[in-house]
Amino acid sequence: MVNVAILGFGVVGSGAAEVLTDNRRVIEKNLGKTVAVKRILDLRDFPDSPFGALVTHDFNDILNDPEISIVAEMMGGSHPAYDFTKACLEAGKSVVTSNKEVVANFGAELLELAAKNGVRYLFEASVGGGIPIIRPMVNDLASNEIISVNGILNGTTNYILTKMLDEGASYEDVLKDAQAKGYAERNPAADVEGLDAARKIVILAALSFGKLLNPNKIYCEGITKISSEDAETAKAFGCSVKLIGHTELVDGKVLAMVSPRMIPCSNPLAGVSDVFNGILVDANMLGECMFYGKGAGKPPTASAVVADIIDIVAHMGQDGVRAPKFEVATDADYADFGAYATKRCFSFANTVDAADKIHKVFGDALTAVVGERIAVISEALTEKDAAEAAAKVGLALVSSIRML
Amino acid sequence: MVNVAILGFGVVGSGAAEVLTDNRRVIEKNLGKTVAVKRILDLRDFPDSPFGALVTHDFNDILNDPEISIVAEMMGGSHPAYDFTKACLEAGKSVVTSNKEVVANFGAELLELAAKNGVRYLFEASVGGGIPIIRPMVNDLASNEIISVNGILNGTTNYILTKMLDEGASYEDVLKDAQAKGYAERNPAADVEGLDAARKIVILAALSFGKLLNPNKIYCEGITKISSEDAETAKAFGCSVKLIGHTELVDGKVLAMVSPRMIPCSNPLAGVSDVFNGILVDANMLGECMFYGKGAGKPPTASAVVADIIDIVAHMGQDGVRAPKFEVATDADYADFGAYATKRCFSFANTVDAADKIHKVFGDALTAVVGERIAVISEALTEKDAAEAAAKVGLALVSSIRML
Repeated sequence: MVNVAILGFGVVGSGAAEVLTDNRRVIEKNLGKTVAVKRILDLRDFPDSPFGALVTHDFNDILNDPEISIVAEMMGGSHPAYDFTKACLEAGKSVVTSNKEVVANFGAELLELAAKNGVRYLFEASVGGGIPIIRPMVNDLASNEIISVNGILNGTTNYILTKMLDEGASYEDVLKDAQAKGYAERNPAADVEGLDAARKIVILAALSFGKLLNPNKIYCEGITKISSEDAETAKAFGCSVKLIGHTELVDGKVLAMVSPRMIPCSNPLAGVSDVFNGILVDANMLGECMFYGKGAGKPPTASAVVADIIDIVAHMGQDGVRAPKFEVATDADYADFGAYATKRCFSFANTVDAADKIHKVFGDALTAVVGERIAVISEALTEKDAAEAAAKVGLALVSSIRML
Repeated sequence: MVNVAILGFGVVGSGAAEVLTDNRRVIEKNLGKTVAVKRILDLRDFPDSPFGALVTHDFNDILNDPEISIVAEMMGGSHPAYDFTKACLEAGKSVVTSNKEVVANFGAELLELAAKNGVRYLFEASVGGGIPIIRPMVNDLASNEIISVNGILNGTTNYILTKMLDEGASYEDVLKDAQAKGYAERNPAADVEGLDAARKIVILAALSFGKLLNPNKIYCEGITKISSEDAETAKAFGCSVKLIGHTELVDGKVLAMVSPRMIPCSNPLAGVSDVFNGILVDANMLGECMFYGKGAGKPPTASAVVADIIDIVAHMGQDGVRAPKFEVATDADYADFGAYATKRCFSFANTVDAADKIHKVFGDALTAVVGERIAVISEALTEKDAAEAAAKVGLALVSSIRML
């Protein structure tokens, strides 16, 4: 029997305990061993939970228990989650986590610490909720050079954008609806401003290119400026609008960014709706492949945490088990965002001579009139060139959205 | 350095040699070891290939070479592929393969033989070409009970059906076009009659439910009877038509089948077009997740073969590495196909009183008039009930397609 401790008995933490209990039979069948929750750390008590008796308020009850070999950290936030993780790894316990904040900020150090102590640090649930993506990138794509990753990594914003496109509703109205349904938090900033997606794309960039960028240092634009007119414009061009985490190499350096993108409906990401996530990986031999599923929610995310626990139990006592490897990026590892060019959709206030003015700057580029706007799709432009081109048109610019 | 031998220097075999060579740098980085092709078995010579000097016509040159620890079988067909695989495993060599015929027919026996000899038998490339699906099912979904798998598993038929739907072309014309483009073989029977998909769904069923069914004993219906009118009808109901491999448990026994299905466009499989494959897995905690990508082709399939080689090298010398486990199904393991019910789309020759006649049998079910047909979507019906209901209508039945 393998004993596990859970740090943080919130949504995912209690979900992991439930998956281990409810799916005990299939886990034992797949693993040939029993995995049991021995202790749960939380500030609260849970007298009504079947796991209530396992709760402790003292981390040392877990850290000093030699029978606990695996710790599942699902506390959220950097501290004390990072500190507890470090202590567990140093004490020879493997750690699994759903905490993207800790992985994005301290993942390189924690992986190194795990390797040094002959234990493991796994974080399948930190990106894409329950969708298998970390392990497939480390194992199945090991025969490929990664070219790029484009991901719909945040369910809350994808729900909002889907409603805006499907129902023509305004951002504000849909946000209120999402909050009422529990899809968005009362303070939705981390989701709608893109920070949650930034942490996730930074993790995927590290797996792809070996460098862990600082999620606070990458270009990050949320969806708060997307209007129902932008959604209409996208539809006019046969596109969808999604919040996309993007990473690729630019001149050998790592670019990672988060921004809304207009995506042609032929791209499989365009069909990823509601709270679903989709991660499209382009690899040099495999080409494009997509991983799709529930990017959040209690049982899906918990099942990814438990998959990591199973992975650790299955390889216990073995040396040199494969682990993701990446190092903290130095300033020199960051690509020059100014050199990165994308196609764009510019929307201007429409006037009688607007089409002419646009033609002078953008030639025969595709245009569409949507309500009181006229929109045009440009060739790939850098930030600076895009601003200059838009200014040169001589019309009031109302929106500028990157294309994928 | 780890030495690999390749059995069969066809499309996938030569692709594997190329992936190992062209991606040598990233493989070494990910693995910390060098993997080299030492020998290639083929009946032919390849004097113009950079690998030509490695070719042998004698299998014993590989079997008896103690320096070769991994053999990649990409010969196709059951014999001698199965026999060579068996000999290699018995000689203590691990085997990887893209050969779905061998896995579907002999996989249980070969996995057992591998375990007995302390080596491994991996077959990521046998389903979904380059798409990671086998390893994710074994590892990432180990915390879940699998409820069902629905897969677009054959690129040739998906290309044909996509063209029929998008362009209204006839089956015969699109097949000719697909043959001209190299997407379909001159004898396309294994693809269009569904046997290729049957072998693959049998493998996925074994991973899901632990029983390896005989691909020749499951219900298998190809796409040869699908007409451009069927495609039109599907569009009228907001659906797509796909050849679907399906598996689930019915009364605790394994159902696996291949048939065309009408799929509502809200289902992510509906958007899987052209030669792409998509595999939608429904698991009890994770819910639905989809794996999408290139299901065939030289570099994608070869990259999956090489991923298996990397997996073996990474875990060399370790005991108890996790492996898929399933056993040959007995007659008692097969679900009763007669008890399996699905919604259906019936198309009848339209007449002035057709709507009334349909209403009498199917009540207020959704109908659509398409050309000279009238179509109706039924509730879930077994084979027998479907035939009876259609006969009771008293119109000429022109087509009956299952829904997903």
